[in-house]
Amino acid sequence: MSLSYSNYTNSPCAACKFLRRKCTSDCVFAPYFPPEEPLKFANVHRIFGASNVSKILHEVAPHQREDAVNSLAYEAEARLKDPVYGCVGAISVLQREVLRLQRELEETNVDLMRYASCLGGETSAYGGRRG
Amino acid sequence: MSLSYSNYTNSPCAACKFLRRKCTSDCVFAPYFPPEEPLKFANVHRIFGASNVSKILHEVAPHQREDAVNSLAYEAEARLKDPVYGCVGAISVLQREVLRLQRELEETNVDLMRYASCLGGETSAYGGRRG
Repeated sequence: MSLSYSNYTNSPCAACKFLRRKCTSDCVFAPYFPPEEPLKFANVHRIFGASNVSKILHEVAPHQREDAVNSLAYEAEARLKDPVYGCVGAISVLQREVLRLQRELEETNVDLMRYASCLGGETSAYGGRRG
Repeated sequence: MSLSYSNYTNSPCAACKFLRRKCTSDCVFAPYFPPEEPLKFANVHRIFGASNVSKILHEVAPHQREDAVNSLAYEAEARLKDPVYGCVGAISVLQREVLRLQRELEETNVDLMRYASCLGGETSAYGGRRG
């Protein structure tokens, strides 16, 4: 029988504490929701619900569960901060930033090409960068 | 009494159909989950749960509810496609792309400055772009 995080620390995990239930050695939440981080579980519980988080954890391979929990915690925190857009707001901001940088890089390459044509023979050294 | 989308079309909204309940004129889901898009509700229900979606809708102003539903639908679809990272995967990809473009722009500006210094007097025309 393997020992879960909560057994190791002799304290129920944050999920079991929140849900007021006994934290058993096979608790699916225990390795990812240590008792010292009560907000992490409270947030994912509020946005996704405990049973949906448990379902997702059972769907993914054990070695990917930590990443799954961390991405769920990130999404939950973003949704609590911004109930309208959640972390989709960050995606929009980043997409706009990528477009702006691509445009700027394109313009800079045009300038670079203009200089290169002025300098003639030296153009091969600076062929312009592709965005 | 205002007419909801479902009353207008004489068919329960996708949420009420899914939950097998009567779609009333004040149904909070009806304006955003038309019966022609059953998957939109099925997805958000599977990831967030109907009561969490309803809670979020009641939290935000009516004019922002459509954006809230669309961002929830986007997050739900991303999580179903990628149970480990969900739409946080897209954020990581975009963050890396922003860093790559910033680096490339910086390098291009260095090249541009090198050309400008070769051309001497003409430098004022191409002052280099900031990323």
